[in-house]
Amino acid sequence: MDLYFSPMACSMATRIALYEAGAEAHYLEVDPKTKQVLTDGADFRGVNPLGMVPTLRTDDDVVLTENAAILQYVADRFPDSAIAAGSGIDRTRLQQWLCFIGTELHKALFIPLLDPKASAETKAWALAKGTSRLDYLEAHLQGRDFLLDRFSVADAYLATVINWTMATPQIDFANWPAIKAYHKRLRERPSIAKAVAEEFELFKAEQARHKAAA
Amino acid sequence: MDLYFSPMACSMATRIALYEAGAEAHYLEVDPKTKQVLTDGADFRGVNPLGMVPTLRTDDDVVLTENAAILQYVADRFPDSAIAAGSGIDRTRLQQWLCFIGTELHKALFIPLLDPKASAETKAWALAKGTSRLDYLEAHLQGRDFLLDRFSVADAYLATVINWTMATPQIDFANWPAIKAYHKRLRERPSIAKAVAEEFELFKAEQARHKAAA
Repeated sequence: MDLYFSPMACSMATRIALYEAGAEAHYLEVDPKTKQVLTDGADFRGVNPLGMVPTLRTDDDVVLTENAAILQYVADRFPDSAIAAGSGIDRTRLQQWLCFIGTELHKALFIPLLDPKASAETKAWALAKGTSRLDYLEAHLQGRDFLLDRFSVADAYLATVINWTMATPQIDFANWPAIKAYHKRLRERPSIAKAVAEEFELFKAEQARHKAAA
Repeated sequence: MDLYFSPMACSMATRIALYEAGAEAHYLEVDPKTKQVLTDGADFRGVNPLGMVPTLRTDDDVVLTENAAILQYVADRFPDSAIAAGSGIDRTRLQQWLCFIGTELHKALFIPLLDPKASAETKAWALAKGTSRLDYLEAHLQGRDFLLDRFSVADAYLATVINWTMATPQIDFANWPAIKAYHKRLRERPSIAKAVAEEFELFKAEQARHKAAA
């Protein structure tokens, strides 16, 4: 399996899922600016025309895109692991949270806040809409360890997204203590601690590379 | 089954799916502004605290939210129907398209364009990002009838989203002829023609109600 990723991007959720499953995989770093695959200099858009990570090439040479699909694929690929995705209404709940994180948090809230091309006005608009979503998440996480009754790939995704608050000072988790405590707990989970430590080093190297090229 | 919907909103995808499956369901209209359930005047936020449609109450009294989850639930609930969701890599592809439509088109492109609170600058920012996504979709739809090899709930969702271009003159499908032709074909499909005709009448009534209350 080949996982195309960029450091600290939403592809980190798939890395966490693979670590949880104890799966072997190749991790191919994509520079988010140049869209080059770092190992061989290839143009990543030849693999995924949108140039978006995560992109997963399966052992059967099938190229998959989109976080919610890839995370469920990885969970289904390792049915005996701790991230097995369940079926019936449990699967529906997993899909519900993957969709909520992908649409309401990742795309609607964090992308505008993180995009240097988005104006202060656009960021304020996104933040005004997003706080009710954080309130909703806060209410759900009160008294819970995970989004579902056990760790799932939705937690891998949510932990990855919440990590981005290191670059969005507009979101202060003092206002959402259950989310803050959830994130702190998850950051101590071995798979997530390892993924964050590794990718943060790569992220710093990426930033240095961009600075040198500027 | 109870489907909470607002006219012409993304909940129309679930109505289309239910029509395709020939399923019985109660359709409960929610006013998007007041969040009142029209049939009984109840506050919809008592059902879904975010006040977002679609929300589905199953026959087992389970409340489901989020389009991608509800559409797959309906498809799985009627495994012998034309919208049966498949398994294995077919299911992964379905999830991929549901995720793409939900994140890249619905949330990232159409919500800013449709939101009267979003400034012209925010709309321009969203449009600049969104055109590459429409290019990607255009390339995929060339020579295809559906997103997958047959009609699926992803087409129900995409047809619903593309309908919104009636309110987003910034998106001119003359630039994306395969998407335009796809939409025209789908609009003629009985389930979609019926859903659009019914919900457009309700939408006009909603607009009139809001005008009278202003």
